Amino acid sequence: MRFLIASVKICVLVKPGRTDMAARSGEFDLIARHFAPIAQRDPAALSLKDDAAVFSPPTGCEVVVTTDALVADVHFRNIDDPGLIAQKVLRVNMSDLAAMGARPGGVVLTAGLNRDLSEDWIAQFAKKFGDDCAAFSVSLLGGDTVGTSGPTFFSLTAFGYVPAGKALRRDQARPGDLLAVTGTLGDSALGLSVLMGNHPNLDDTEQAFLKDRYWVPQPRMSVSNSCMDLDCRFSVMDLSDGLAGDCRKICDTSHVGMTIYQDKIPLSPAAQSVLEKDQSCWSQILGGGDDYELLIAGAADDIKALGNQVTVIGSVTDMVGQVDLVGMDGKMAELAPGGFDHFK
Amino acid sequence: MRFLIASVKICVLVKPGRTDMAARSGEFDLIARHFAPIAQRDPAALSLKDDAAVFSPPTGCEVVVTTDALVADVHFRNIDDPGLIAQKVLRVNMSDLAAMGARPGGVVLTAGLNRDLSEDWIAQFAKKFGDDCAAFSVSLLGGDTVGTSGPTFFSLTAFGYVPAGKALRRDQARPGDLLAVTGTLGDSALGLSVLMGNHPNLDDTEQAFLKDRYWVPQPRMSVSNSCMDLDCRFSVMDLSDGLAGDCRKICDTSHVGMTIYQDKIPLSPAAQSVLEKDQSCWSQILGGGDDYELLIAGAADDIKALGNQVTVIGSVTDMVGQVDLVGMDGKMAELAPGGFDHFK
Repeated sequence: MRFLIASVKICVLVKPGRTDMAARSGEFDLIARHFAPIAQRDPAALSLKDDAAVFSPPTGCEVVVTTDALVADVHFRNIDDPGLIAQKVLRVNMSDLAAMGARPGGVVLTAGLNRDLSEDWIAQFAKKFGDDCAAFSVSLLGGDTVGTSGPTFFSLTAFGYVPAGKALRRDQARPGDLLAVTGTLGDSALGLSVLMGNHPNLDDTEQAFLKDRYWVPQPRMSVSNSCMDLDCRFSVMDLSDGLAGDCRKICDTSHVGMTIYQDKIPLSPAAQSVLEKDQSCWSQILGGGDDYELLIAGAADDIKALGNQVTVIGSVTDMVGQVDLVGMDGKMAELAPGGFDHFK
Repeated sequence: MRFLIASVKICVLVKPGRTDMAARSGEFDLIARHFAPIAQRDPAALSLKDDAAVFSPPTGCEVVVTTDALVADVHFRNIDDPGLIAQKVLRVNMSDLAAMGARPGGVVLTAGLNRDLSEDWIAQFAKKFGDDCAAFSVSLLGGDTVGTSGPTFFSLTAFGYVPAGKALRRDQARPGDLLAVTGTLGDSALGLSVLMGNHPNLDDTEQAFLKDRYWVPQPRMSVSNSCMDLDCRFSVMDLSDGLAGDCRKICDTSHVGMTIYQDKIPLSPAAQSVLEKDQSCWSQILGGGDDYELLIAGAADDIKALGNQVTVIGSVTDMVGQVDLVGMDGKMAELAPGGFDHFK
């Protein structure tokens, strides 16, 4: 089903009758007007005029597929800028592709639009979505637009390509590996907290930085590319639910444990300012999520080869399923999956 | 993002805090419990334990991708049986694959579940979804589960495989072709009408038949396979929005017109019963949608080769964009996209 088709189906089932159909078709014509031009950039989309899109992975490559849905007032705030929401919808999925070492190929987008959204809102969303697709060299291959009386939602499925057998898997960590992360952690969770009215003592620049980190994930495609270029054994995942819980996913699939040093966790100056006032915010930094940074385990030399794109935060152990945090005081405590128990 | 991960993210952003997280993780554990077993049937899903799934199309094949979203009380009724909803979610997408001549490969499912849904509802949905995936030889490769305060929604992206360059496109119709359809038309629209309390004079069997046609689409994979086996020039699409509007999509992409004979349109006995009472129901039959039958244009001999799987309903003309209906009385009228104007 494609953008241009979904329109009519909605009308038919909500309220049968030609009058309604005519009334609503205008609404969905405008969606077609805003989304179709983005899609027509790739011949695989068949100009959105067929039942489906058709594509082929490059020779020797496998297809990587991931999907992620965002719901208003759960994953984004209804009052957020539509362009920022569009970037988040795309980028949380790009981050998953990065975590697999996949080069972005195409996306299909389901937009479940609350009926009160204005044309301007939709236009802004579509414009920025198209721009961001171009920035990530990814094609909008199709989608579906539906109306909803509930919160607006988006579901995006992204495809990428990876040389056969070379995907960066979570099950490749080995005891003795070093553990590294990209970027800085916790900014997004703190940014949401700022948006909710917390941390009023931060200066404007710091507040703006943290909010931006919440709004616009920065998928680490370049680090992902470096991992692929090095062609070493790396175990990689993207951090979306917070380091505290996410790191266990590598432990579970690789059957290993981890030791993480709290003082090695990379923090932005803004996050450091927050912590100066309130050390309990470590809980948000480690458990809050929405980082979209990569967590990478690999042999010391291989991690070293990634250079200053990553920060070493600990190591992989043979204590299966056990994740220990070495605190600022040098004392060890278990890093609980649901958050950070060190300050209880 | 995968089933097992989405859980935590929801909690974090809805209501930060460890207590909530613990409370809600139970809810989403159960989703993992119900969906994960379905997904683990295909190694490409990586047991849902990685950032994405990885698959390869068979040698010489392209990937066909389609996506379709269904929203409660728009595309299905909230009170419908969850198993029937599950079948519809899968099958509307299978129908798109059939329309492209693609063999089903895999699906990723986003489930946006209203927070009031019971575990039993989710279990029933997942059970039937898994059974239907097996029936269509399609693998659940991943997905995302999110909570919503609004209507429940599902967004499914389906992949299929088609020999390179052989996809059944809409742009292949030529003047002089015959036009044929699978199955019978209008049953689903009439079934919804029955569910809304109309047509009380139909007997129970007829009512049950029509309702079933609304609830459970029957994607025409076998006819699709026949088209592929014949390896002729066919122009194919699936009818989801009603013949009246859908047939124009082949006209637009193939730059042709069509003449359709009303008395040739295949009707079920139940639909015939409805029409005996009320001829105005032709409007629903031709414009109501949700048929999920295939509309096929091709050379006479090739349509003939499809045998009694299809019914010839008209022919393709060189009157670009013009769709004429020859009525029961032999008189011609334009078949309007929004419905059926013959009985105005």
